[in-house]
Amino acid sequence: MEKLKKYVSVKDEDHFYQQGAVELLIFNFLLILTILTIWLFKNHRFRFLHETGGAMLYGLVMGLIIRYVTKSSDVESGTVYECEKLKTGPSTLLINITNQVYEYQYKREISHHNVNGHQGNAMLQKMTFDPPIFFNILLPPIIFHAGYSLKKRHFFRNLGSILTYAFLGTAISCIVIGLIMYGFVKAMVHIDQLKQGEFHFTDCLFFGSLMSATDPVTVLAIFHELNVDTDLYTLLFGESVLNDAVAIVLTHSISIYSPKENPNTFDAAAFFQSVGNFLGIFAGSFAMGSSYAVVTALISFMHLTKFTKLCDFPVLETGLFFLLSWSAFLSAEAAGLTGIVAVLFCGVTQAHYTYNNLSPDSKRRTKQLFEFMNFLAENVIFCYMGLTLFTFQNHIFNPLFIFGALVAVFVARASNIYPLSFLLNLGRKQKIPRNFQHMMMFSGLRGAIAFALAIRDTGSQPKQMMFSTALLIVFFTVWVLGGGTTPMLTWLQIRVGVDPDEDLKAKAASQSASNLDKNTTKAESAWLFRVWYGFDHKYLKPLLTHTGPPLTSTLPEWCNPVARLLTSPSAYGDHLKDDDTVYIINNDELTENYESSAHISVPAQESTGSIQATGKEDLQEGDLGLGGYKLQLQHTAGQPQKNLSA
Amino acid sequence: MEKLKKYVSVKDEDHFYQQGAVELLIFNFLLILTILTIWLFKNHRFRFLHETGGAMLYGLVMGLIIRYVTKSSDVESGTVYECEKLKTGPSTLLINITNQVYEYQYKREISHHNVNGHQGNAMLQKMTFDPPIFFNILLPPIIFHAGYSLKKRHFFRNLGSILTYAFLGTAISCIVIGLIMYGFVKAMVHIDQLKQGEFHFTDCLFFGSLMSATDPVTVLAIFHELNVDTDLYTLLFGESVLNDAVAIVLTHSISIYSPKENPNTFDAAAFFQSVGNFLGIFAGSFAMGSSYAVVTALISFMHLTKFTKLCDFPVLETGLFFLLSWSAFLSAEAAGLTGIVAVLFCGVTQAHYTYNNLSPDSKRRTKQLFEFMNFLAENVIFCYMGLTLFTFQNHIFNPLFIFGALVAVFVARASNIYPLSFLLNLGRKQKIPRNFQHMMMFSGLRGAIAFALAIRDTGSQPKQMMFSTALLIVFFTVWVLGGGTTPMLTWLQIRVGVDPDEDLKAKAASQSASNLDKNTTKAESAWLFRVWYGFDHKYLKPLLTHTGPPLTSTLPEWCNPVARLLTSPSAYGDHLKDDDTVYIINNDELTENYESSAHISVPAQESTGSIQATGKEDLQEGDLGLGGYKLQLQHTAGQPQKNLSA
Repeated sequence: MEKLKKYVSVKDEDHFYQQGAVELLIFNFLLILTILTIWLFKNHRFRFLHETGGAMLYGLVMGLIIRYVTKSSDVESGTVYECEKLKTGPSTLLINITNQVYEYQYKREISHHNVNGHQGNAMLQKMTFDPPIFFNILLPPIIFHAGYSLKKRHFFRNLGSILTYAFLGTAISCIVIGLIMYGFVKAMVHIDQLKQGEFHFTDCLFFGSLMSATDPVTVLAIFHELNVDTDLYTLLFGESVLNDAVAIVLTHSISIYSPKENPNTFDAAAFFQSVGNFLGIFAGSFAMGSSYAVVTALISFMHLTKFTKLCDFPVLETGLFFLLSWSAFLSAEAAGLTGIVAVLFCGVTQAHYTYNNLSPDSKRRTKQLFEFMNFLAENVIFCYMGLTLFTFQNHIFNPLFIFGALVAVFVARASNIYPLSFLLNLGRKQKIPRNFQHMMMFSGLRGAIAFALAIRDTGSQPKQMMFSTALLIVFFTVWVLGGGTTPMLTWLQIRVGVDPDEDLKAKAASQSASNLDKNTTKAESAWLFRVWYGFDHKYLKPLLTHTGPPLTSTLPEWCNPVARLLTSPSAYGDHLKDDDTVYIINNDELTENYESSAHISVPAQESTGSIQATGKEDLQEGDLGLGGYKLQLQHTAGQPQKNLSA
Repeated sequence: MEKLKKYVSVKDEDHFYQQGAVELLIFNFLLILTILTIWLFKNHRFRFLHETGGAMLYGLVMGLIIRYVTKSSDVESGTVYECEKLKTGPSTLLINITNQVYEYQYKREISHHNVNGHQGNAMLQKMTFDPPIFFNILLPPIIFHAGYSLKKRHFFRNLGSILTYAFLGTAISCIVIGLIMYGFVKAMVHIDQLKQGEFHFTDCLFFGSLMSATDPVTVLAIFHELNVDTDLYTLLFGESVLNDAVAIVLTHSISIYSPKENPNTFDAAAFFQSVGNFLGIFAGSFAMGSSYAVVTALISFMHLTKFTKLCDFPVLETGLFFLLSWSAFLSAEAAGLTGIVAVLFCGVTQAHYTYNNLSPDSKRRTKQLFEFMNFLAENVIFCYMGLTLFTFQNHIFNPLFIFGALVAVFVARASNIYPLSFLLNLGRKQKIPRNFQHMMMFSGLRGAIAFALAIRDTGSQPKQMMFSTALLIVFFTVWVLGGGTTPMLTWLQIRVGVDPDEDLKAKAASQSASNLDKNTTKAESAWLFRVWYGFDHKYLKPLLTHTGPPLTSTLPEWCNPVARLLTSPSAYGDHLKDDDTVYIINNDELTENYESSAHISVPAQESTGSIQATGKEDLQEGDLGLGGYKLQLQHTAGQPQKNLSA
């Protein structure tokens, strides 16, 4: 430990280059341990501890060591200095100390009661990285990967239900947690554990919104490994992906909700401003994310025209793809929108359009790159969560608040899943069975997003209490609920070992037989979805990828000159092969252990240079939460059900 | 620009999350522009501007915009505050400003004359990232990639010459630059451009050592594209890779050389201390890097024993590989050694041992991952170099010093290449022709390492002058010399379009015919190399990979129990296939546009699960600078020259 202390000294010229090394080395060491453990577990088919749980455990142990074995070395740092000349805190401060000028950089504002927590251990401070690192570096790859690897076919089958759980469910969860916590806060004030007026109802709602971001990564990994029923997997995955976006924007909207007078009263104007803000930010981020993806699609699309071939340079192509996707995130952040939401929809759009234009090499490269980044980022975050339990210096653990939060989290999850499932089942053809509902209820794990949202602001006492509580709930849910997934699956008798494609076909077949008559009468209900699908297929797909019919045939006559300009030459020859209801499933292109998107085309005649334009919309039915109505398309060209993957 | 200013304010709660976003976005934007430009250039076969040159150009333009379009907004930061209570600069400073406590973090020490340079533009400061980012984040992947993608076969053929250029050549270059610069410094003192005693001889040597790091990335890219003569490519590549390591350690050794009395006199004790330091750090870093690689090899090797199979989980395998390689770097840094050197030898060792143990999927993944990281990091550095010409606020451009440096750099390169080539040609069978020497002389570009070494310390005026000068020399060499590569190749009549493998065989054949008689008489000269090669082949390869003969046959009888334990089961069955002089060249495994290692095995019977143990040492002759003596191995089993790749 003497060695560690060495790097703390400010005067050492070389410390500058060593200071980061020790901390990074500790993280590397933890991650290596995690990987080795997982490897061991996978060998013994031990499923009670997922890699994220393991990472958290190792982080915890390391935090304990750093906390109690390293000593506080920097005695100066507990002291507060006065500076009368300064009126505001500049971003850079030059200070003359014994005739030598030092530059200091602004880090944060500290409330007075935290000042004492700052004395001491510089090692602890070093191990605490800034919240921006989470938001700008670690979260984007995770969220992008989720969007990019979305199993679109199953996702769209359950779109309505997923949207309901994600939007309505998250709002319900937020309000229920907020209300329950407000009750507990009142009780705490009553027994003098909390000062009156310190914890407002908006704070409770804030806590509710951040605790509403579910992250069932552990559960999903087990589902994937065991091939659990695809609908359950998709419902849970889709919900958790979109729910993060909703929770993040909700948290932001609540944090800026500031009623003019009493913070406990309801201010309609401020409320509607927050709602408007929520919608604005969500829509803006969505637009930002998808437009970057569209730009990427357009650039990578160009390789079929006579101009140039980007696909001949996979490194350039992958680099461009990566940079533009990251730019979607950064632009949204810079514009005051939500980068996470932007990068999510960017990922979905990239998978929908750009992926089709990439060279086979770049397809594999981008998949593997994001898979790898997701793997690392996820484990770093969970490692850090474990570490932070002991290294964060301003924890406030209030047993009553923690107990209240635990209760609230479960009640909120229940009032999200059960009532909404009931409502959805009224409309769904393919009901969500009772045991699926229980499993979804059980899978309400909290993870990276809840943590990241909580650590964003730990300046005041209520915020610190929320952070400590959120951390404990993450620990509890990841270890206890995550570890209990396999027993729970057995107990609820949920079938495992399902082939997703066979499953879908079987379901589709049974469904189309039973409600063939409904198709024509109630098809209007899904009109919004149908309109979008038609538009996408007729105009966007041909414009952005080389699939679908040529624009010359879909655009009105008078647009022909423009259409001809925008259509790729290969689209003309191939459009007869276009078949909308064909399933194209490719199992050999990627050998992934984790997530893999089902939306992969098989260019059968690739060696001839022309890439086959197969309109592989793997969409069988549109479900907008209003029922499982089969979507009949006008384009269906001849053979309505041909399986190329067979 | 009003928008940009917004993110500078300290008080804004959200600025914390936006502050990084704008700067990162600017870099992303520059990189995207660079990629698009390169794509365009590649299409038009325009070779006068390499991607790094383009990145630098765009960085320059962006720096210009930031400098003159954004305004200085943070008026506070030019002021120096007094603090009598403080005796030393603590790493964290708490300051009470108008009853609110702010936390400031130590950044660096500033010399008094630089204080004025600090007023103003916060945007400029934001765009200037810390030197540790270069050393801990950006450089390691570049250097590792260089080591990992070393064309070993050709490298070992020219090992002696490469080592001579790298060690002796760099030392010569450093001393020559140091001497010439000392002359110029004396002249500057004479005409009152510099104060007496400000610039010591050690400072000149320091400058010499940092300017000795060559980085012919532009030239090598063109060589690779045009398939220039393999020997020339290998000499240049090998020299530039090792030379970086030498220059970095040399710079460090010189910076700690401190004669006790007059800094201009020669202090033998301090000198030998520096030499010892150089050797110690070099050896230590080498050991650190290779031991991490050996650990990786051992872990990944385990998948053939009955214990476990890491190769079934490519993400885990790739993750482990990545983390252990990075740990080599970080451990070396933390231990006060040189991380760059460690990571270089780690890369070489990983390619030599671990690569053979990886699953085919992981082989591709690791290659592509490091290729991608190398691509991004390289372009970020060159972008940043361009940017820094205008955003760095303490430039000192002294025309005489710059002129002197330019002269010194070329004279030093000449006194490195020509005399050493002459000496080497005395011993080499395969002479280095005149035009190769001219081309090597011409390829003395300076790049990332010189820049990174110069930016490490810009605290004093001499150091600032060095930094500004180094920057200009990088610009000049990358643009002018880099751009002139293709004309120069034509002018020097260096043959292009060479198939490296055919070339090697032809040379080997002509050589073995001409000096077959010398083999037996002078084989002792390369004894060190032969001993190492035999040891590696007999013990290390079987221990760390599943190639080479089983340990049971190479170790003495009494070691058998241990040997049996350490030998992989597959080695027994396969060792008859072992053939040392076989060339295995694989062209289809990787479709890379940039660097690709030739050292790829083709497990022909992979589907059967047992990976063929082919001792694919692609080594034909050992050259330790003493001559091109063919290395005849005892193991040559039957067919001495069998080409599996045909």
